[in-house]
Amino acid sequence: MFRTAELGRTVSKSDYKERALALRQELLQAQQDLRECGRLPVILVFAGVDGAGKGETVNLLNEWMDPRWLVTRAYGEPADVERERPEYWRFWQDLPYKGQVGMFLSSWYSNPVLDKVYEKIDLPNFDECLDRIIAFENALADDRAVILKFWMHLSRTAQKRRLKTMEKDPLLRWRVTEVDWQHWQMYDRFIEAAERTIMRTSTAKAPWFIVEGADERYRSLAVGVIIRDGIRNRLEELRLEDEHKASLAQDAPEHSYAPTIIQGTTTALGKTGTPLRTILDSLDMEKSLDKAAYGIQLKRYQAKLNLLHRKALQAATSTIVLFEGPDAAGKGGAIRRLTAALDARNYQVIPIAAPTDEERAHHYLWRFWRHLSRAGRVTIFDRSWYGRVLVERVEGFASDEELARAYAEINDFEAQLIEHGIVLLKYWVHITKDEQHRRFKARAETPHKQWKLTDEDWRNREKWEAYEIAVNDMVEHTSTSLSPWILVEGNDKRFARVKVFKTLCAKLEEKLEAK
Amino acid sequence: MFRTAELGRTVSKSDYKERALALRQELLQAQQDLRECGRLPVILVFAGVDGAGKGETVNLLNEWMDPRWLVTRAYGEPADVERERPEYWRFWQDLPYKGQVGMFLSSWYSNPVLDKVYEKIDLPNFDECLDRIIAFENALADDRAVILKFWMHLSRTAQKRRLKTMEKDPLLRWRVTEVDWQHWQMYDRFIEAAERTIMRTSTAKAPWFIVEGADERYRSLAVGVIIRDGIRNRLEELRLEDEHKASLAQDAPEHSYAPTIIQGTTTALGKTGTPLRTILDSLDMEKSLDKAAYGIQLKRYQAKLNLLHRKALQAATSTIVLFEGPDAAGKGGAIRRLTAALDARNYQVIPIAAPTDEERAHHYLWRFWRHLSRAGRVTIFDRSWYGRVLVERVEGFASDEELARAYAEINDFEAQLIEHGIVLLKYWVHITKDEQHRRFKARAETPHKQWKLTDEDWRNREKWEAYEIAVNDMVEHTSTSLSPWILVEGNDKRFARVKVFKTLCAKLEEKLEAK
Repeated sequence: MFRTAELGRTVSKSDYKERALALRQELLQAQQDLRECGRLPVILVFAGVDGAGKGETVNLLNEWMDPRWLVTRAYGEPADVERERPEYWRFWQDLPYKGQVGMFLSSWYSNPVLDKVYEKIDLPNFDECLDRIIAFENALADDRAVILKFWMHLSRTAQKRRLKTMEKDPLLRWRVTEVDWQHWQMYDRFIEAAERTIMRTSTAKAPWFIVEGADERYRSLAVGVIIRDGIRNRLEELRLEDEHKASLAQDAPEHSYAPTIIQGTTTALGKTGTPLRTILDSLDMEKSLDKAAYGIQLKRYQAKLNLLHRKALQAATSTIVLFEGPDAAGKGGAIRRLTAALDARNYQVIPIAAPTDEERAHHYLWRFWRHLSRAGRVTIFDRSWYGRVLVERVEGFASDEELARAYAEINDFEAQLIEHGIVLLKYWVHITKDEQHRRFKARAETPHKQWKLTDEDWRNREKWEAYEIAVNDMVEHTSTSLSPWILVEGNDKRFARVKVFKTLCAKLEEKLEAK
Repeated sequence: MFRTAELGRTVSKSDYKERALALRQELLQAQQDLRECGRLPVILVFAGVDGAGKGETVNLLNEWMDPRWLVTRAYGEPADVERERPEYWRFWQDLPYKGQVGMFLSSWYSNPVLDKVYEKIDLPNFDECLDRIIAFENALADDRAVILKFWMHLSRTAQKRRLKTMEKDPLLRWRVTEVDWQHWQMYDRFIEAAERTIMRTSTAKAPWFIVEGADERYRSLAVGVIIRDGIRNRLEELRLEDEHKASLAQDAPEHSYAPTIIQGTTTALGKTGTPLRTILDSLDMEKSLDKAAYGIQLKRYQAKLNLLHRKALQAATSTIVLFEGPDAAGKGGAIRRLTAALDARNYQVIPIAAPTDEERAHHYLWRFWRHLSRAGRVTIFDRSWYGRVLVERVEGFASDEELARAYAEINDFEAQLIEHGIVLLKYWVHITKDEQHRRFKARAETPHKQWKLTDEDWRNREKWEAYEIAVNDMVEHTSTSLSPWILVEGNDKRFARVKVFKTLCAKLEEKLEAK
């Protein structure tokens, strides 16, 4: 695999001078086009053999390109704040905005490859790490990121020569460390791990380019040309895609079976017009709790939760609780009862409404990644990442392609939370359509509650059946033994709140005991 | 995940009667449209809980649809001829043609799921099996196959009830075996493995549909509707795609940077017009061997190979040798020297030319899968699956999308050969452009060799440089430590032949000793 990067490719000084000048202008132009378009970020990954010019190339690109629209990130050992979150948290934080170029050194590839070289992980575990990388890059690429990955290569002897030369140069000597020589000793194992990495993670969406690193002029031009063409090609693709969509819209398509992605059996059958039982029909919505019992139980569970959350803080066990449900189902009320039992320094409530500009300029999961708290804390989401498969699906804000991958992306996200040891609870607080109507009317008639009721709430009601199907599909795809949905019968607020407390305490207890 | 398939969905008898009739006609129509289109196969996978109606549904579909365009396959323990090939060989053999529908029971999912339930494999190994499935289905889906997968579900209690009922029915009793009850005991473990399987392998290209199996009428309609819509949607998509391509062709696109998929650093830089060193430039084409030394060595190696190939037959170790290289490079001559040392009962030579109609109606790898021989045999390919990234790339026969995934598909295919214990050797026999010219002229002037030289050979010469880049990219992407390319300096035929013998014997020896 690396033989093609040991051919001794060079570029002459005069040739380089001429071509570098032109390339520099073209890269600046590509950056400007990217900003104007504003719809795609560029992610450049630099990895490879020590001494093959990763750092130099990144520095050169920083010189060549417009630094205002460029971020460079390198990663060492994770800091405390990073270790307390899932591994990929820091990479999500650092992702470039749409219109921006991000350069990553020692990125998400660094740990898996080195762990394999140092035999900290075996082959199946190594492959699992690579699968995680593929899922991560796919999610970004599907969201239109241009991803180009450069493997800077040197042969075993060339690396030795390069390290020796650097050691002799007083200005470069400091850069050659004991670790570099250690790595050189393990060259063959490193190359073996690299080969598997490149083979498995080089996809059409995020290809690797193996670049011979021995000649500085050659490698600089090679990387520059690939970046230039990568950006240009994607912008051109986007233009063609837009044109195509515009022409389709003009044609006013008359075909009866639009090529939609089927979201599950229920969606497929929904078309036939038969009213189908959904998971929500299986709830006993008559469940209730009288006031006296509620008072006693609420107090008991609040005390219990307070104790548990202090234990969790000590054990550095984070908790994430998310609430979804129809308007007026009582999510807010349940959340207030929960927070009353918690210490304000240790929890945060994140209400999820329409995304901000900044959030819109990233992958839709980015805004949830950023809210992951440090170890031991409780984070409560009032609505959540499930917006994509609920409101965005029903309202048509998300495209078919986005919906098709949403469940897999969500499952992958939650798997990372759970692997990291976070306790995750997902509540669907349900009310019947009649009960919602009753509550809306009550809000309309109570002056201090009128602000809670908007025209949109009434409009959403009209889509009740579409939401039922969406919820059913959501449960089918994302309720797993690791991370089940808890469906809460919410017509009686007291019953609902106690059920939330009960299940939350049980899960926390189970987790803390297992520790 | 399975709660949504335990809702007790039913369809009334009268409702069923009416809808089944319409559905049947629609399915027949969909089948006919599929045949007329002739560009995509349909693959239906049936899996799930015993007693949930997998078999019944497949039988019903056979009744409803046109059996001439339908194949049904179920798999038990592999037979000898199957065990002697890589695991997926039998699935490749049974794939439906374009225009045909294939129904698979106990398919490629059966072994991984059961191995996990019986704890024959651990979680990372289970995930590796699922990755193989994803790669397999992706390859087929990328080649336009419609893939729909049905998970027929029954709750734990419903399964028990169903088995009991069947046992009471004299006509069905024979179908309930000890194994069924054993499986029922392991219901929870089975469901856990199923959940992971569905989560990881449900992709937009090959989605799973979880179907509640308790009510026969409901499940029959559900499956039928999903098949009908799956076929219709894909045909419609194809129509739109064709329209779009036609409209693009009319517009005569003027954009300077066509959105092509970059095949590697060399392809990317090729555009800049600088002649680049390729891997072929690194060969010492002056290498030669005098006649006397050749005679001695050839005899020695032929004797050695004969011995080794008989040992390999005994050890049930299969060998695959493939040859690629420019026209007149001496592939045929090398192959004749090899076969002279082998027993004709134990080898086959497969010359690869343009695909037949039958081969064209399948995925491009299908025709190579079908030629995999039984254990211990030698298969020699005169040109091979690399045609896709060589001639098909240079001549533009393969689309950008096909090329983008070709390397990954080839690597995956070869990994399966190697995992199965097959010895794989890949030879690129090279000659210089001048040497080819000399040989072409010699052929033209020698009456009994004239048939070997066609106009096409002369035309191919004009694309020499494009082939050099294609070969370089091919080596970069597919020469791995497990399966390296052996580049043979072929200007001197004697040297080339001995190098082939030498490397082949060495590899066989190494493999047989390791056994």
